[in-house]
Amino acid sequence: MSHVATAVSLEHTRILVNSRLDAYCKQRLSQAASYGGGYAILWQFTSKIILAGGKRFRPYMFLMAYQAYAEHHSLEGVYPAALAQELIHLSMLVHDDIIDRDLTRYGIANVMGQYEQYYATSITDPNERQHMARSSAMLAGDVLLSDAYRLLSQLEVPGPRLARAVEIMSQAVFEVVGGELLDTEAAFMRDPLIDAKSIALHKTASYSFVSPVTMGAVLAGASDGEVSKLRTLSEYLGVGYQLRDDLLGVFGDESRTGKSVTSDITEGKRTYLIEQFDATASPQQRAVFYEVFHNDRATYKDILDARQLLIASGAKAAVEAEIARIQEVIMATIESLELTREHKRAFRELALQCLVRGE
Amino acid sequence: MSHVATAVSLEHTRILVNSRLDAYCKQRLSQAASYGGGYAILWQFTSKIILAGGKRFRPYMFLMAYQAYAEHHSLEGVYPAALAQELIHLSMLVHDDIIDRDLTRYGIANVMGQYEQYYATSITDPNERQHMARSSAMLAGDVLLSDAYRLLSQLEVPGPRLARAVEIMSQAVFEVVGGELLDTEAAFMRDPLIDAKSIALHKTASYSFVSPVTMGAVLAGASDGEVSKLRTLSEYLGVGYQLRDDLLGVFGDESRTGKSVTSDITEGKRTYLIEQFDATASPQQRAVFYEVFHNDRATYKDILDARQLLIASGAKAAVEAEIARIQEVIMATIESLELTREHKRAFRELALQCLVRGE
Repeated sequence: MSHVATAVSLEHTRILVNSRLDAYCKQRLSQAASYGGGYAILWQFTSKIILAGGKRFRPYMFLMAYQAYAEHHSLEGVYPAALAQELIHLSMLVHDDIIDRDLTRYGIANVMGQYEQYYATSITDPNERQHMARSSAMLAGDVLLSDAYRLLSQLEVPGPRLARAVEIMSQAVFEVVGGELLDTEAAFMRDPLIDAKSIALHKTASYSFVSPVTMGAVLAGASDGEVSKLRTLSEYLGVGYQLRDDLLGVFGDESRTGKSVTSDITEGKRTYLIEQFDATASPQQRAVFYEVFHNDRATYKDILDARQLLIASGAKAAVEAEIARIQEVIMATIESLELTREHKRAFRELALQCLVRGE
Repeated sequence: MSHVATAVSLEHTRILVNSRLDAYCKQRLSQAASYGGGYAILWQFTSKIILAGGKRFRPYMFLMAYQAYAEHHSLEGVYPAALAQELIHLSMLVHDDIIDRDLTRYGIANVMGQYEQYYATSITDPNERQHMARSSAMLAGDVLLSDAYRLLSQLEVPGPRLARAVEIMSQAVFEVVGGELLDTEAAFMRDPLIDAKSIALHKTASYSFVSPVTMGAVLAGASDGEVSKLRTLSEYLGVGYQLRDDLLGVFGDESRTGKSVTSDITEGKRTYLIEQFDATASPQQRAVFYEVFHNDRATYKDILDARQLLIASGAKAAVEAEIARIQEVIMATIESLELTREHKRAFRELALQCLVRGE
């Protein structure tokens, strides 16, 4: 990283973050190898997921926010905090996959999936094997979470700023755990007070947007007023990102998003889009739609019909309108920031990347 | 806590730690309540386990070590680190119970156990209910782990000392995760290089002894030489504690230890005692013993006979001899510390509490 303050780019961030994550994995793998037994295997499987994919969007947002408020400082000193964002994310992914009983991530076997294969020769009972694979994956997620804090402690910043950075991260973990819980329980304990937007706020916005953006600003010494505006901005960004994601999950171009446009419907994912459908559809539209929704035997034609109902009912337009409203709030908040025109533009571009992507 | 340096006692530590943990639980419970849904329930269940039991031995060791090296300082400022030891421990207990499929802890339903009961009305399929109860308990353990680091960040100590404290804690988590993994895998993947003492070193000594003792000394400003001796001392202490625990698990007085003296044998727990039996017993003794070991249909008389073989073979005496050797190393290390007579005595008493308890 040069000491000259060139604007951070997502591409450049990804290369640097990947190289540092690679070094982190190698270090942990070599330490684990000295324990004997299977600890090195755990790090081998975990490293594979750490290095498999990820746009490194969280480190990028962190560095962007840091640079906006500390233009003439080198980014070198705050890289550990950029990596910490990614380790928290990876820890949560590993545990989230356990909850969702997913065995793949980034198109390859995830930590639990790799353990399922690895234990196949030593544990014949499939339930027992699943339990052990899950247990080992849980342990992997634990140490990633712990190491995120270790990285933060390596920052060379004034003590009070470091304490605030840790507070931001622990608040994000407290929130994402709440969001995960609400999301999981929503499947079997319908609570009218819990809606898709509040789940998105806790589960997505907290650690993926609020933590990177506000921590970057705090470490750069931004004022409380600026940090407070950035918090609002990144909460909206996270919720808006999720609403766009929900639309792409039904109406997106699979070849561009890489995401199935049928699974959200057949799995019965209760997104904000579906909530809007419930609020706007006629009884007849609802009757037809719920024959297909959460029905894994629905045909492709059924799904296309259901999708048409999401448009005809006005649900899709309602989500688009909400994203547009969120975009307005975000743009007004960016305008009010005490930043140069150049940094405001960078934030606006970030917002558009989150809200208008994939179209 | 008074600013006069009276020697810390386990009893006094327990009262203060319990009161602060109670405040912590109330704070998190009230924050979670604002999320709506079941997040407050998670904190209700978790608080019950946090406040249910625990001798608070880890905070006590931490404070004792701190006081030994910073005699004239108030303990008030380092209490967050004492609590952090306990939160890490509780996080690991919650996840350990998931791995062991235990539903009770301290004689009451643990976090997963409470969730199993709570979800009984909303999830009828027992496998599904178990999965959700386990998932929620995993999330509870995650936020306890995260909050341990949050507590550390609240310490008012010089930056480099804080960084070393975090490094000690994250190293302990890295180690206990390795220890858990080796211990779990030992049940189905026998590795001749992994023995009971190395599992005890990683799983028990790391976060229960090394972390509290060395972190206390580091935060008090002890020299590297002293910290290094304390590391050795507390590694031996942890392993010695475990060996004594293994003996008590077979030969102890149930009315004093509160532990069953039959379950280690019927569950086939491969302790150092059993390793010594394998090394010393005759083929005939082994044949009789392994009819009973790991056999949950063994009678009480069978178990008494097996126990007798552990004595007759010389295995029990070998463990006692190893504990005596460990005690010697510990006492010599304590003697070499640069401490007053009074503080050396406190360390000797701690060692005897760990190594000679329950007899």
